[in-house]
Amino acid sequence: MTLTRSDFTYFMDVPTRWNDNDMLGHVNNVIYYSYMEAVVVRFVSEVLGVDWYTSPLIPYAAESLCRFKRPLAFPQKVEAAMRISHIGNTSFSYELALFAEGDDALYAEGRWVHVMVERESERPTPISPDIRTTLERYKVEGS
Amino acid sequence: MTLTRSDFTYFMDVPTRWNDNDMLGHVNNVIYYSYMEAVVVRFVSEVLGVDWYTSPLIPYAAESLCRFKRPLAFPQKVEAAMRISHIGNTSFSYELALFAEGDDALYAEGRWVHVMVERESERPTPISPDIRTTLERYKVEGS
Amino acid sequence: MTLTRSDFTYFMDVPTRWNDNDMLGHVNNVIYYSYMEAVVVRFVSEVLGVDWYTSPLIPYAAESLCRFKRPLAFPQKVEAAMRISHIGNTSFSYELALFAEGDDALYAEGRWVHVMVERESERPTPISPDIRTTLERYKVEGS
Amino acid sequence: MTLTRSDFTYFMDVPTRWNDNDMLGHVNNVIYYSYMEAVVVRFVSEVLGVDWYTSPLIPYAAESLCRFKRPLAFPQKVEAAMRISHIGNTSFSYELALFAEGDDALYAEGRWVHVMVERESERPTPISPDIRTTLERYKVEGS
Repeated sequence: MTLTRSDFTYFMDVPTRWNDNDMLGHVNNVIYYSYMEAVVVRFVSEVLGVDWYTSPLIPYAAESLCRFKRPLAFPQKVEAAMRISHIGNTSFSYELALFAEGDDALYAEGRWVHVMVERESERPTPISPDIRTTLERYKVEGS
Repeated sequence: MTLTRSDFTYFMDVPTRWNDNDMLGHVNNVIYYSYMEAVVVRFVSEVLGVDWYTSPLIPYAAESLCRFKRPLAFPQKVEAAMRISHIGNTSFSYELALFAEGDDALYAEGRWVHVMVERESERPTPISPDIRTTLERYKVEGS
Repeated sequence: MTLTRSDFTYFMDVPTRWNDNDMLGHVNNVIYYSYMEAVVVRFVSEVLGVDWYTSPLIPYAAESLCRFKRPLAFPQKVEAAMRISHIGNTSFSYELALFAEGDDALYAEGRWVHVMVERESERPTPISPDIRTTLERYKVEGS
Repeated sequence: MTLTRSDFTYFMDVPTRWNDNDMLGHVNNVIYYSYMEAVVVRFVSEVLGVDWYTSPLIPYAAESLCRFKRPLAFPQKVEAAMRISHIGNTSFSYELALFAEGDDALYAEGRWVHVMVERESERPTPISPDIRTTLERYKVEGS
């Protein structure tokens, strides 16, 4: 079943840039990850309250994935959507989608796994109860 | 079992750039995909003989994935490695790994799926016998 | 005299991205040019009516310059500002500035020179009367 | 007089990447600055001995400029060349050029100004005698 905006719980607009496009006139597929990173990074700082410079525990990307459904192109405006799909002991996962403004079509779907690590040692650390509670709120029932 | 260079059949050196590093002093995880893209794109043009500007059939990325094993950082020199892991009717898959010069450790492993499309219509098209034969040579027995 | 928003005639908001920041926690100076390019490229397509894919005459960058006044950093929102400063026979120049949302300070000032070229031959071509008239409207008296 | 490799005193090879190219099939002009940055950053760390993470004094870019002479395109290999052109009290300047492997033509020429700053305060600081002596060695007589 194709994903729609209503499957997601957190959103961010990401304008494309001229040099996001490659020689074929489409957004380069590497850049799709930068759109997904944008929404993930904002969620981590604004919703989870992590300060990338000072928080003792920060999330590291352990895995990401993207399925390219149709080509995006500058000057489209991208709408990056996410929900939390899994919460483990030290890691949690996002399901992601990229839409374009004014368009219901799914342009890409993706996955992202974050592992919580201790900043200095870079060792995995259990997710705190506060963050776990917040993550739960961004899951979708049945997902 | 951890991947080593001997699991792969095609290689490319990719020097890191200063602004590949992010605020945490590591290569930004989005950039890992640009290293994997480098080896894939060169393989397609130099080995498969595809001209991105003029060939009537060109491969489009359908999916990619990366598992981040340990942080790369400028000024390390990356060695991107690949092998063909699957050849279907219109699509084929790569298994990828990123190593660093002078170091046996695996920094990242990945996957990439290419679909052969007709340039104008952007519709999937069967892989030609010539390209299939070449792809076979870059598989590893038992993989 | 320090430049302010009122010195300019065309504006574009450009959100910063996480990986615009470099190891020092500031937007990498190369990225400042991508912000300036954003406003220039949009001006060329939306105001001058150039279609980058099909117009027979398109502008090529001949020169650019940036003076870095203070560091930008993600997640600031950049406001890129421009005016036309000079109109020659085949080329025209922009004066540019980068501001941050909610802040009067000048973060960077720049210059950009475009040469109008014939798409196929890549040879300089006189600016058409229509485009000249439009460019005049984006100059500032006395600049 | 057109610049040639013999006008310069320090060099670095910078392979182009697939997504350095823009929609017009040329290296995007913003990326030229990333090639110039590559040689400048390496010079600062390898010749001047600055550690970007720990040195108390580090250079900040105050200004850069590029004149685009002819289009570079992936998969060309870029050769970035520099010399020191001016040494002031707290700042010093580079003259830069971009060449392509196996080709005498000048693809771009540029300028870069570094100001030495104290890491914590970000305030300009006089260039140390040691660094001044090293910089002198990378000037060219009469330049």
